[in-house]
Amino acid sequence: MKLYDFAGAPNPRRVRIFAAEKGIDLTLVPTDMSKGEHKTPEFLEKHPSGKIPVLETEDGQFIGESVAICRYLEAIQPEPNLFGATPYELGRIEMHNRILELEFWTQIGISWVNGPVVAKIAAGRFKQNPAAREASDRNVHAFYERMNRELADRDYMTDGLADDRFTVADITALSGVDFAKDLVGLPPSEDLAHLWDWHARVSARPSASA
Amino acid sequence: MKLYDFAGAPNPRRVRIFAAEKGIDLTLVPTDMSKGEHKTPEFLEKHPSGKIPVLETEDGQFIGESVAICRYLEAIQPEPNLFGATPYELGRIEMHNRILELEFWTQIGISWVNGPVVAKIAAGRFKQNPAAREASDRNVHAFYERMNRELADRDYMTDGLADDRFTVADITALSGVDFAKDLVGLPPSEDLAHLWDWHARVSARPSASA
Repeated sequence: MKLYDFAGAPNPRRVRIFAAEKGIDLTLVPTDMSKGEHKTPEFLEKHPSGKIPVLETEDGQFIGESVAICRYLEAIQPEPNLFGATPYELGRIEMHNRILELEFWTQIGISWVNGPVVAKIAAGRFKQNPAAREASDRNVHAFYERMNRELADRDYMTDGLADDRFTVADITALSGVDFAKDLVGLPPSEDLAHLWDWHARVSARPSASA
Repeated sequence: MKLYDFAGAPNPRRVRIFAAEKGIDLTLVPTDMSKGEHKTPEFLEKHPSGKIPVLETEDGQFIGESVAICRYLEAIQPEPNLFGATPYELGRIEMHNRILELEFWTQIGISWVNGPVVAKIAAGRFKQNPAAREASDRNVHAFYERMNRELADRDYMTDGLADDRFTVADITALSGVDFAKDLVGLPPSEDLAHLWDWHARVSARPSASA
């Protein structure tokens, strides 16, 4: 299978980590977003929104959106389980994954598009909104504090499971924290010890460097 | 099972439609967001973000986030299938559902929080951002045009399935369009015939009034 990929972007990284946890080999196809290679008519046939990553299956079908690709991979290779095995686990892991996307990733995204790197890349083509960035920076830091509180009682992101284990929600959280920290200039405060312990734990997994 | 619900809000409506399609009875527990009933310490035990809807399962466990609740319902009662039966369908339906959430619902949300209804409800407690709303209004209309183009070739939201059929993506789309139209003041243009045909088709299903 092929994965249309762009190094440094947080979404394709989620899929690479997920596949590595499953032991699934993906042939990476570098697609240079800085040159607009994801917006060509040919690429829009693969994903009508022109977004990276996109999976090309063995039989030449296309699936876009990171979590949709991960669900496909979970269906073709169920173990190790990352989305949940029982109805309750399926619901609870999805709940945590979505909280991370809706309350954390969205805010990182607002800080990113209104921040200095995008200002340089998109100079003049995109009108930035500094007030929106002020609010999203605050929201990212508030979410770090929440993560830190919640991780005081457990080792991984999803609570309520029979065993405290690594799931897709940890992949979403790790990719978000690293993007915020390394590219958006929003690292967690040094005093958030539970958050940093979790970060060291998941970063030590071989999949983290996929 | 109980569903903590708030009439008029688009997210609990998604779950009510989904359950109605499955023929699953939910006992609705009205939770008045205008009185902050979703932010009490007791409610935060059910969902740490204080959001509606929340499902209480038969054995007293809690699942928040609309799509997470729907996944639980799909797992306990697989038919009629709404998330996909094969790996490809599972990926493709999730892809379309997420495109609708990430590119359409997010924009409706920005227009909503920066619009006149919230200005009145949250007077003084929330600083609105008119520039953000201008952009999101434009994005909502651009997405309507995209939906209209895509629905020229098919009856339902998810393309690429063996049969052209109703899925969770149609529920996400219907709840979004109706919220934008009825409460945010952003109805689709009258000339978007394919979009309106689809809207009439899915609105005629008994589940739409759940």
